[in-house]
Amino acid sequence: MTTPPRPQVGQSILSLSTPLPLIDEDRLAANIGRVQTYLDGHGLAFRPHIKTHKIPAIAKAQEAAGARGINCQKITEAEVFAEAGFEDILITFNILGPEKLDRLKALNDRIASLKVVADSASTVNGLSGRFAGGKPLTVLVECDTGAGRCGVQDPQAAAALAQTIAASDGLVFGGLMTYPKAHDEGSVDIFFSETIARLAALGISCPIVSNGGTPSLFSAHQVPSATEHRAGTYVYNDRAMARSGHCSLDDCAMQVLATVVARPTPDRAVLDAGSKALTSDLLGFSDYGMIPAYPDAVISGLSEEHGVVDLSRVTGPRPAIGDKVLIIPNHTCVVSNLFDIMTFHRDGVVTRVEDVAARGLVW
Amino acid sequence: MTTPPRPQVGQSILSLSTPLPLIDEDRLAANIGRVQTYLDGHGLAFRPHIKTHKIPAIAKAQEAAGARGINCQKITEAEVFAEAGFEDILITFNILGPEKLDRLKALNDRIASLKVVADSASTVNGLSGRFAGGKPLTVLVECDTGAGRCGVQDPQAAAALAQTIAASDGLVFGGLMTYPKAHDEGSVDIFFSETIARLAALGISCPIVSNGGTPSLFSAHQVPSATEHRAGTYVYNDRAMARSGHCSLDDCAMQVLATVVARPTPDRAVLDAGSKALTSDLLGFSDYGMIPAYPDAVISGLSEEHGVVDLSRVTGPRPAIGDKVLIIPNHTCVVSNLFDIMTFHRDGVVTRVEDVAARGLVW
Repeated sequence: MTTPPRPQVGQSILSLSTPLPLIDEDRLAANIGRVQTYLDGHGLAFRPHIKTHKIPAIAKAQEAAGARGINCQKITEAEVFAEAGFEDILITFNILGPEKLDRLKALNDRIASLKVVADSASTVNGLSGRFAGGKPLTVLVECDTGAGRCGVQDPQAAAALAQTIAASDGLVFGGLMTYPKAHDEGSVDIFFSETIARLAALGISCPIVSNGGTPSLFSAHQVPSATEHRAGTYVYNDRAMARSGHCSLDDCAMQVLATVVARPTPDRAVLDAGSKALTSDLLGFSDYGMIPAYPDAVISGLSEEHGVVDLSRVTGPRPAIGDKVLIIPNHTCVVSNLFDIMTFHRDGVVTRVEDVAARGLVW
Repeated sequence: MTTPPRPQVGQSILSLSTPLPLIDEDRLAANIGRVQTYLDGHGLAFRPHIKTHKIPAIAKAQEAAGARGINCQKITEAEVFAEAGFEDILITFNILGPEKLDRLKALNDRIASLKVVADSASTVNGLSGRFAGGKPLTVLVECDTGAGRCGVQDPQAAAALAQTIAASDGLVFGGLMTYPKAHDEGSVDIFFSETIARLAALGISCPIVSNGGTPSLFSAHQVPSATEHRAGTYVYNDRAMARSGHCSLDDCAMQVLATVVARPTPDRAVLDAGSKALTSDLLGFSDYGMIPAYPDAVISGLSEEHGVVDLSRVTGPRPAIGDKVLIIPNHTCVVSNLFDIMTFHRDGVVTRVEDVAARGLVW
């Protein structure tokens, strides 16, 4: 099958065909360093979430900077990273069903330290049924500290599920995990601390206490009960992270290169980047990304392969047909998930092209 | 690299690991037949848009039903379908830039009938510069009949650009094309008719007059100036098409199979289908798909791998952890774009697995 030529090392990014997501090497390195330094300074272990990049080479850079272990969201992601040599993997997902349990067992037998989470006795029973009699699997209790997604609802339930895990054949209780509501460190610390106290009273130790998230990452030290922090988005950053206060727009390592393919009216430009390049993730914004070269331009609508840009507020020069523009996406993680390759550059010159190795593997 | 096992022919869909998009063969065949019969009855040629499925086998079924040629949105899509034997391809996109023009030229030399669109002299000049002296390329004028995306703004501009194309080395004027605003057939017909009249006065014939879109497809006969209709979404259908009146929810051939992985509270279920399976496309809805088995459940929020379901309005039995549910997505085309394989079934039994061959090829 014909595929487009891969960008070549040394090419100018402005010579590349579009749409194409790009990663600025210097911003990437700075993002990795800044977060690791902060967490090191507070004695928090750092476990990067690879869902953002899905590229083993990036995780190796995170590890080289000081990260301890990685975080995956799917079994296939963990398998790809195990294949690449990672031996300490936490999958922060309830794993259910015979096919996935078989894969999980094979993965547990393969690497030094595999850990998963559970938030119900149903999930724990399923894990125990598959792991009884073999190498035990480490299971953390997922706690809903306010985000309203998965997780047990209070410290009493967390301690009870920890007891269930500790009493289950084939399982080892590994600690607590939450994906928190951003900027709500107090709730996380109270939930964790109360659960740890309950567990201590039961004689159950809690080796890992895992907090997470990029939006309020630099407040992670306000959860003293945590032993580690997980974050994914920080590595590339995006418009939503800049809005959250985690970074500035100049820290956004991912930009999507697009071409102006039409100027139907003086106030309208159309880009060749639509929802199949930027996704429709709004994350609270009313438009679909921002264009640093035209800060007053508004990406007002996306169809699948077109982005419609409202130029009515642009007072200076406006882009012409054929011009290339860089877009900071609202949400970087979902853009990675759309492309099979990621192109890296330094000062606009391509440095490398990586396969997005853990993309598209269904589950 | 390890990849998940492909679903096997004969497997029950309920035994498949999730999340996984599924296509109901009978609904697919009925969708193909219903639209073809309608357009045949009105003497309109039908050119299906393959962006929805990106699978040559589906396009062959559309062709077998009576479709004449296919519609692509990207060069790589057209290349994949040319490789599969399709000889009449319309790419409804302004093609710009040397790399894409080279690929377009190679494709034009390869298949019997390649056609593209243009909405500016810039695009036309770029095409002419590359195609002069070789096999001519057929170019249609894209018209903005109200959708506010690409396209010349009025019949006068359309006729002028047609003249430019007709006078350009290496190019042949092929006709007119629009992606219209839905339920606004009158505007499309006026735009087309006035342009055709202007062209006739100039002695320029207009062989193809191409209207498009699924939402008001069954009103296509209200554009008598059109010679053909293009549509993609109709083949699978989705929640947005049901809302538009094009189909019923029972005509939605695509459903995404997901597993209930958590029941943190009585009113909350969490699915293993998030924005990396369903996308964040709302298309005017306030929730992220519907679950026919639980019509009062609301998929109220998505994170990347989780879908949060509000069960508060469900009065009957509620789903339990481990239950599998089928979801009708808001927008089917963008779901196809997330998965490398598509699984087909009849009455819940897998019939085949197709590669989503034209996915992920960057441009």
